[in-house]
Amino acid sequence: MQLHQSSWIEVDAYLKTSKGIVVPIGSTEQHGPNGLLGTDALCPEVIAKRAGDEAGFLVGPTFNVGQAQHHLGFAGTISLRPSTMIAAIYDWTASLHRHGFEKIYWFNGHGGNIATITAAFSEIYADVSLKRTGANAAPVRCTLRNWWELSGVGELCRELFPVGEGSHATASEVSVTYAAFPDAIKRVEMSPKIAPTGPILDADDYRRRFPDGRIGSDPSQATPEKGERIIAAAARALAADYERFLASA
Amino acid sequence: MQLHQSSWIEVDAYLKTSKGIVVPIGSTEQHGPNGLLGTDALCPEVIAKRAGDEAGFLVGPTFNVGQAQHHLGFAGTISLRPSTMIAAIYDWTASLHRHGFEKIYWFNGHGGNIATITAAFSEIYADVSLKRTGANAAPVRCTLRNWWELSGVGELCRELFPVGEGSHATASEVSVTYAAFPDAIKRVEMSPKIAPTGPILDADDYRRRFPDGRIGSDPSQATPEKGERIIAAAARALAADYERFLASA
Amino acid sequence: MQLHQSSWIEVDAYLKTSKGIVVPIGSTEQHGPNGLLGTDALCPEVIAKRAGDEAGFLVGPTFNVGQAQHHLGFAGTISLRPSTMIAAIYDWTASLHRHGFEKIYWFNGHGGNIATITAAFSEIYADVSLKRTGANAAPVRCTLRNWWELSGVGELCRELFPVGEGSHATASEVSVTYAAFPDAIKRVEMSPKIAPTGPILDADDYRRRFPDGRIGSDPSQATPEKGERIIAAAARALAADYERFLASA
Amino acid sequence: MQLHQSSWIEVDAYLKTSKGIVVPIGSTEQHGPNGLLGTDALCPEVIAKRAGDEAGFLVGPTFNVGQAQHHLGFAGTISLRPSTMIAAIYDWTASLHRHGFEKIYWFNGHGGNIATITAAFSEIYADVSLKRTGANAAPVRCTLRNWWELSGVGELCRELFPVGEGSHATASEVSVTYAAFPDAIKRVEMSPKIAPTGPILDADDYRRRFPDGRIGSDPSQATPEKGERIIAAAARALAADYERFLASA
Amino acid sequence: MQLHQSSWIEVDAYLKTSKGIVVPIGSTEQHGPNGLLGTDALCPEVIAKRAGDEAGFLVGPTFNVGQAQHHLGFAGTISLRPSTMIAAIYDWTASLHRHGFEKIYWFNGHGGNIATITAAFSEIYADVSLKRTGANAAPVRCTLRNWWELSGVGELCRELFPVGEGSHATASEVSVTYAAFPDAIKRVEMSPKIAPTGPILDADDYRRRFPDGRIGSDPSQATPEKGERIIAAAARALAADYERFLASA
Amino acid sequence: MQLHQSSWIEVDAYLKTSKGIVVPIGSTEQHGPNGLLGTDALCPEVIAKRAGDEAGFLVGPTFNVGQAQHHLGFAGTISLRPSTMIAAIYDWTASLHRHGFEKIYWFNGHGGNIATITAAFSEIYADVSLKRTGANAAPVRCTLRNWWELSGVGELCRELFPVGEGSHATASEVSVTYAAFPDAIKRVEMSPKIAPTGPILDADDYRRRFPDGRIGSDPSQATPEKGERIIAAAARALAADYERFLASA
Repeated sequence: MQLHQSSWIEVDAYLKTSKGIVVPIGSTEQHGPNGLLGTDALCPEVIAKRAGDEAGFLVGPTFNVGQAQHHLGFAGTISLRPSTMIAAIYDWTASLHRHGFEKIYWFNGHGGNIATITAAFSEIYADVSLKRTGANAAPVRCTLRNWWELSGVGELCRELFPVGEGSHATASEVSVTYAAFPDAIKRVEMSPKIAPTGPILDADDYRRRFPDGRIGSDPSQATPEKGERIIAAAARALAADYERFLASA
Repeated sequence: MQLHQSSWIEVDAYLKTSKGIVVPIGSTEQHGPNGLLGTDALCPEVIAKRAGDEAGFLVGPTFNVGQAQHHLGFAGTISLRPSTMIAAIYDWTASLHRHGFEKIYWFNGHGGNIATITAAFSEIYADVSLKRTGANAAPVRCTLRNWWELSGVGELCRELFPVGEGSHATASEVSVTYAAFPDAIKRVEMSPKIAPTGPILDADDYRRRFPDGRIGSDPSQATPEKGERIIAAAARALAADYERFLASA
Repeated sequence: MQLHQSSWIEVDAYLKTSKGIVVPIGSTEQHGPNGLLGTDALCPEVIAKRAGDEAGFLVGPTFNVGQAQHHLGFAGTISLRPSTMIAAIYDWTASLHRHGFEKIYWFNGHGGNIATITAAFSEIYADVSLKRTGANAAPVRCTLRNWWELSGVGELCRELFPVGEGSHATASEVSVTYAAFPDAIKRVEMSPKIAPTGPILDADDYRRRFPDGRIGSDPSQATPEKGERIIAAAARALAADYERFLASA
Repeated sequence: MQLHQSSWIEVDAYLKTSKGIVVPIGSTEQHGPNGLLGTDALCPEVIAKRAGDEAGFLVGPTFNVGQAQHHLGFAGTISLRPSTMIAAIYDWTASLHRHGFEKIYWFNGHGGNIATITAAFSEIYADVSLKRTGANAAPVRCTLRNWWELSGVGELCRELFPVGEGSHATASEVSVTYAAFPDAIKRVEMSPKIAPTGPILDADDYRRRFPDGRIGSDPSQATPEKGERIIAAAARALAADYERFLASA
Repeated sequence: MQLHQSSWIEVDAYLKTSKGIVVPIGSTEQHGPNGLLGTDALCPEVIAKRAGDEAGFLVGPTFNVGQAQHHLGFAGTISLRPSTMIAAIYDWTASLHRHGFEKIYWFNGHGGNIATITAAFSEIYADVSLKRTGANAAPVRCTLRNWWELSGVGELCRELFPVGEGSHATASEVSVTYAAFPDAIKRVEMSPKIAPTGPILDADDYRRRFPDGRIGSDPSQATPEKGERIIAAAARALAADYERFLASA
Repeated sequence: MQLHQSSWIEVDAYLKTSKGIVVPIGSTEQHGPNGLLGTDALCPEVIAKRAGDEAGFLVGPTFNVGQAQHHLGFAGTISLRPSTMIAAIYDWTASLHRHGFEKIYWFNGHGGNIATITAAFSEIYADVSLKRTGANAAPVRCTLRNWWELSGVGELCRELFPVGEGSHATASEVSVTYAAFPDAIKRVEMSPKIAPTGPILDADDYRRRFPDGRIGSDPSQATPEKGERIIAAAARALAADYERFLASA
């Protein structure tokens, strides 16, 4: 069940059965020569939709532009400053909490978002924590999960791509988008075959270190078939992990 | 050509041919008993994609949550505060300008966004305007267009729905989403047939005035066929209007 | 009755009879070769004072510097960034609401303010809308009215100036200030007689398009006599419109 | 010469003779039983206009709502939060600096503004100070002067009101407004004759300590004649003090 | 008793005996050729610790970086912008108030902090003042005291240094740090013996006026023995002044 | 060499030999029944001072209040909201960069700070990344290191405390503070001997889960002797790690 394709009456009814929601969150940023700019938003969106359809839970709209300042040296990257992103996550959460959602599972597709999302949770909790106990409203609970860290998913990715999985523009994430959007498959020669690795600083520095945008990866191995296997595994793992989150105190 | 399904290399090449981009911007908010929560984001997204595919221009990712405080009385609505939305539009624009985009056409699906988007443009321009002349960077130009105000579109909508088009959860916008997402078509009885009208204030007041969320509309008339006609007409009008924007000084 | 010339005891007594107030809001920005920099603040101030004196309602102090980034290419213009202006309108409103004012009629003199004022209202309402229903405080209601859109006023202006009324540094607004401040009347030759029209972007662009600051107008036609007629008509229309606002739900 | 009654052409010409401006800044807040809510804005406005007319310098529009949180327990008071006020002073200064003004003399009418105005200056200077030396733009210089501290003015006030001058809603400031606005003179019995004194904290506390709003004063002594003497003396002292500011390095 | 060396259980017990706390606040900024960059934080820290140990009151952690934009022309200076400092003081105060502290005595070591700290108090109080009366939480009370203005301290400093005490990098404050940190004593020739005086503007201007950082002082007179006398006197005066603050309504 | 005990002349000279600095950053928050509220600030401060003294590098003042919203249920905890902390780290970094520091090593003592510090780095870099390449200023580089993750340190802690090291109010960190501040050693009975573990949410939730503040630890094992061993090992590891940071591209 997707929130943006539901009516308010359907969401109202849903809230009588569950106080939880999964919100895909990603980034719009370069993903190397053959990866889509939307990769980090599309991966959690695709996996969450699959899992939500199978398990019957509600999936929110995708937070599709995140913290990607280091990729701004490559055309098409769009980034929020962390202070803006904290404000936006705060507003999304306040809106959902207003309706009675108490458990928000942010399903993330971008490593560069982790710190800012986590800081946003603290900003949200600080509002309550700075007040004395005794407020009678049910508090909101946020959690963050990266799709590649779901149980069994990392193992599968390494099994599918024993060499050149890498850490940015990975063979796995490109495969996921190829499975979902076969029309967008791009065949590009890359050299070196496996991209270099190194630290992430500002955008100019990034482009000097990683001239075609990849870090440590060989995404020319990506195929829609492998992507489909990852989606299927990740969707199952997501449903189980989200279930645990709902059950947690 | 959709930015989020393109690689940075493709966008780089595109920038050699054009400095412009169309960015769909909408809202996630209740659209009455049979309308989708995503209506205001989906309409510009669908129309822009159609036009971009036909005319060959670049379409950015959709800014899918906007200013919808007045709809927060209905489950599923998500809203940014105007100050947050201004900061986010500022960051999207700065990112695109960094790459060399100089003409950004914000293609809007939500009346409640207009003021905040317009204020965001002033916030962006003020950065330049507060400096003395002589900066050597090419300035950025933003424009805002609502899809229902494109040439010929309003006329078509009124022709298709001579009674009960309304101003929120309109028969036309619901039709557009039904054409694009036929699986999401909802058949719901509504009473009164045509919803009341009135001023828009805060969320509690809104819900008292408009108990099922509609304003002045009878969206039970919506059909995918009519939606398809609107999409086709709007896509043609968008392409022409965007062309004029690119050509303007 | 003007708030800034009243004592708190007088305002306290006034609040026992009415929960409403009219607040003039304008801008300090160039108004062409013969217009005053204060035009957009002075027009609503003068009209509101006249109407308040005649009808006995309370008029607040004038919010005299607004959003005028596009005029910063001309000496004397002072502008707030939209984000600053939203914060200031928020604080003014919160202060007035604290005393028991529930209906605030912002009486505007500057087209460039409209978007930011409207966004500020949403920022104010969002505070309430993001909370669950049930707050026991009476909510605040804001409305925005431009003086030139009051019933009959636009018609009168076009009748007085059938040619060259224009859209910035209009013959009408200059006339209003000439009626109120006859010592400030300026006689300046202008060429071309009627200024060009065009879009409004940043300050440098504005100055290139509109070299002496006017848009579409011939304010050399302005006279204090015509200004007086406009003031009288606008004051009557304001009193009636404000009355309707107070009576509205 | 008043900026808001000048055209941009006149200000442009003025800038060829001087890079300085006097900006009255005050507050809209209760001033006891017989004082005007606008007292703290009106006093510097009136004195600056007198001095500007006599000495020929430029006077800006009045910043008429300031930091008055402690007076919010009395009807009609309007206050900016300090963070908002800093942003607004920043924008006014940036606008004036853009035109070539390099010396801004903030002429203040409210003790409660002093800290925030001073902090705003630091916020403005910090922009430059955080950059390495070598910027080629002429820097802006701000200064703050309270009208009651001008040379000879305090002495005159104490001479006119040897008893009950006080520190808020003073006999002197009420006199100044009575001289300028004789129609607003209010005759009110006050008890005790001289108001109590004490510390200033939040609004509820203030009202408990100072039930009718005055601190240490007996403004029933105020007369327009004495106000006129103060205005004349303060205008002369202002012209001299401003002259020194312009001449300072 | 120092908060940062106490456990939460000890602070909990302390709160049963007192609702007050002393918080040293200073700056990290150049203090001339022989003064420590930490002088303005170390002086209140050292004096407060001495007084807290003797009188048994609680001393908070030191707010050690303040508003020092004007000193940024000298290496090692670290400054907060006023808007940042207001936010931080707001958060410290909200945290302490959450635990039940109702009287916060900010013990200051830097003149350049005074305006911003005072503005921060207004920002804190404005939260309460903008609400209608009747909140049931005990309000927080903040006060600001500069160590050099404590009763008898200024007199002692002038007695110890009849010539060349000055106003920045004073002989007294350098003496205090020399008493506390004898290993950091620096012997430096200075010329002229007594530094010039003048106004404080931005960092580049400051460095031009005051080439070695001092204002009006001859800190080569500083000795640890004199510093010890100042610390002892200031600690006694602080204990008495804080006692009065606790006893005040 | 400690910045706050150095003069600006000494820092100026230091900058000729190195562009790097180590800045301790921690938190003021409850650390269980026998731990100091300042533990997380004092640990990096003590270790950095030791290493700086031995290896001759510059150590900045300690950023002593961080992100600790989850500990606000325990008396004495002081927290910044993440948005405030980002602004403050931004200002500290801009100040240091102004003087020519290009490598800032933030030496952290609090797990709850990691996300916010990392987000602050992105905020800092975004300023540069949003600009086109070609700025001629040397960029600033920030890194974050937690003291307990330095090479060999975690191993030593687990060797010293094979049972009950835990994750908050650890036996190791309490030992470090006991070594540095033997007068602050507290002997407190704790039950259960080893504290529970669990997730970290808001302050009320935290206190319910962890009634005495500890997570997973038995800090009653802490001794100054073990603390001294940890300090010595960590100081050596810090010097080596910082050396690598300085040498990195």
